[in-house]
Amino acid sequence: MKNIGILGASGSVGTQGLDIIRQFPEQYKLVSFSVGKNITLANEIIKEFKPEICCVQSESDIQKIEDKSINIVYGDEGLMEIAAYHKNDMLLNSIMGSVGLKPTVHAIKHGVDIALANKETLVVAGEIIMQLAREHDVNIIPVDSEHSAIFQCLNGEEHKNIEKLIITASGGSFRDLTREQLKDVTVQDALNHPNWSMGKKITIDSATMMNKGLEVIEAKWLFNMPIEKIETLLHKQSIIHSMVEFNDTSVIAQLGTPDMRMPILYAFSYPDRLPREAERLDLAAIGQLDFKAMDFERYKCLALAYEAIKTGGTMPVVMNAVNEVVVQQFLDQEIGFLDIETIIEREMHAHDVIQNPDLDTILEIDAKYKSRKYEV
Amino acid sequence: MKNIGILGASGSVGTQGLDIIRQFPEQYKLVSFSVGKNITLANEIIKEFKPEICCVQSESDIQKIEDKSINIVYGDEGLMEIAAYHKNDMLLNSIMGSVGLKPTVHAIKHGVDIALANKETLVVAGEIIMQLAREHDVNIIPVDSEHSAIFQCLNGEEHKNIEKLIITASGGSFRDLTREQLKDVTVQDALNHPNWSMGKKITIDSATMMNKGLEVIEAKWLFNMPIEKIETLLHKQSIIHSMVEFNDTSVIAQLGTPDMRMPILYAFSYPDRLPREAERLDLAAIGQLDFKAMDFERYKCLALAYEAIKTGGTMPVVMNAVNEVVVQQFLDQEIGFLDIETIIEREMHAHDVIQNPDLDTILEIDAKYKSRKYEV
Repeated sequence: MKNIGILGASGSVGTQGLDIIRQFPEQYKLVSFSVGKNITLANEIIKEFKPEICCVQSESDIQKIEDKSINIVYGDEGLMEIAAYHKNDMLLNSIMGSVGLKPTVHAIKHGVDIALANKETLVVAGEIIMQLAREHDVNIIPVDSEHSAIFQCLNGEEHKNIEKLIITASGGSFRDLTREQLKDVTVQDALNHPNWSMGKKITIDSATMMNKGLEVIEAKWLFNMPIEKIETLLHKQSIIHSMVEFNDTSVIAQLGTPDMRMPILYAFSYPDRLPREAERLDLAAIGQLDFKAMDFERYKCLALAYEAIKTGGTMPVVMNAVNEVVVQQFLDQEIGFLDIETIIEREMHAHDVIQNPDLDTILEIDAKYKSRKYEV
Repeated sequence: MKNIGILGASGSVGTQGLDIIRQFPEQYKLVSFSVGKNITLANEIIKEFKPEICCVQSESDIQKIEDKSINIVYGDEGLMEIAAYHKNDMLLNSIMGSVGLKPTVHAIKHGVDIALANKETLVVAGEIIMQLAREHDVNIIPVDSEHSAIFQCLNGEEHKNIEKLIITASGGSFRDLTREQLKDVTVQDALNHPNWSMGKKITIDSATMMNKGLEVIEAKWLFNMPIEKIETLLHKQSIIHSMVEFNDTSVIAQLGTPDMRMPILYAFSYPDRLPREAERLDLAAIGQLDFKAMDFERYKCLALAYEAIKTGGTMPVVMNAVNEVVVQQFLDQEIGFLDIETIIEREMHAHDVIQNPDLDTILEIDAKYKSRKYEV
């Protein structure tokens, strides 16, 4: 029996994590979780899974939790308690955005293995996090389908033999539009992702390809690879989730139907696998897989992400923070779709980079760039 | 430094094995080899690689070997000496047909690891060979691109988690013809394989899909899988060399350009990999991969192979022996293309199966069915 904590239990990955725990009651038990404002769901989770501790966002929500026997905490401090709860064997960190950083650090310091869906953690502080994980002998297992794919492709292989990582990209909801057409797309258009059902922020990030940029940076830290050895490839069906090319020219790929529960279960069960009843990949029915070279002109945000990680230091922090804000501004219909990349580029180029920042500096820069609204 | 022996050094896989030894002189040394009738090549190999022992087919060829300092043996007894040569760390068995069986057994009994390109060995005596290999703690590493693919996909994975093996098939040289059109195809047509440059026998076996049938049976023994868990899938580009589906629905695939030197090098270097200068897979340039359900009506020989292994005992021996003879008869233009399957089916259905045959029984049945010519 493995005890699981979930940060962000009401989100897309969080609820699918709960699905896995529901399907494997002999293997996994939910002991701790956090939600944002969805108290109804929190009450349901408590009823069904009987965890020991729950974190809500604000103090005023505590009284809305019906089960008075459970330990209830709140806010940023509460997240820290959930992350490092003494009974957690593994923490599924599925919070969106860089708010996931501090709880991850806290969990690692308490020896809790991490199933990481919060990619911003590694984007802003990858070097620090991976160093901490090594020091505390903690596993960081990716839950993103792309990184889980690479993680699986590296099973039984030696790091020195990796030639490159090839991260596939569906192209997002606007892949068939020209840049001219992108000017006038609406929020509703953007939220209609062709392959994956995900949260709003990540769906917009998929449309701008910033999501792939965050993944490239995440992959660099997770797999300890120079950025030059991380490629992206357009593959509209999202069936090959990612690949690894080795020095002898052999390429290992991981494939599957688009279903986040697979990488979540893998993170829970690793290094073992568990039999799961779900739709199986049927390549004969799919018939055809397509591939196209990445277009960095078309997907400016991906080019910015490569630029940010090559520059290093606090540059990825700024890129990520501004992206979080402007994506929300786009969702709030304050700016247009193409303004997202324009603003990120402008703010990056105006930023004075601090190299080798410590965690406090990262959090400070992150907070500073997130506290603003951006004008076109 | 690993000492390599090669059975069938003048064949397609054999010469590519020599290429690998040539490219990695620090890692591999040819110590023993056999050829058939190609004495010119034998002399060249001796000059270039300076092995210690060489086997030719007939006694009269011995005098044609120019280097008189080398140990020269001949015939079936000679093959046995090459197979178990005391300095062999690994034997690349790339002889065609069931003549490869006895030397394989001999090598295993002498503790020599096997790089196996001779699929007939496992087709006729898989159970005995794998049992022997376990007893003598010998690795049998596949050199076929499909089995090497599966072998690589299983790196770091547990056998209990395998859901099924998916062996891809290009469809061979006649994949775009109807059965009606197959009646009149010529030997020349059949030898024109779309993806792979191989020996004649295996190219015909690819056209009839018997090659895939042999691979299915080989996979059963090599990976210890029930035949029900081994599927075949038409994939005309031969880029995905094969796949493994796991119990959690994850599918791992191995991909590459069609080049036998990759699996040969992998068999030599396993569990490590070695950096190799060669054409790299470029999926963006390839653009598209196609998949189609296998058609057992169209490819009768594959259906016969499944039938043979399900029946078990000596049935695969008969199937394989008759196939070897009738393919040669087709190459000699004595029979038509579709006669191949008709004759194999007829002979299989007339055979009284012996279950759990020992090696002598297998060799006896094999010799009996190979000593005949078959009429339509």
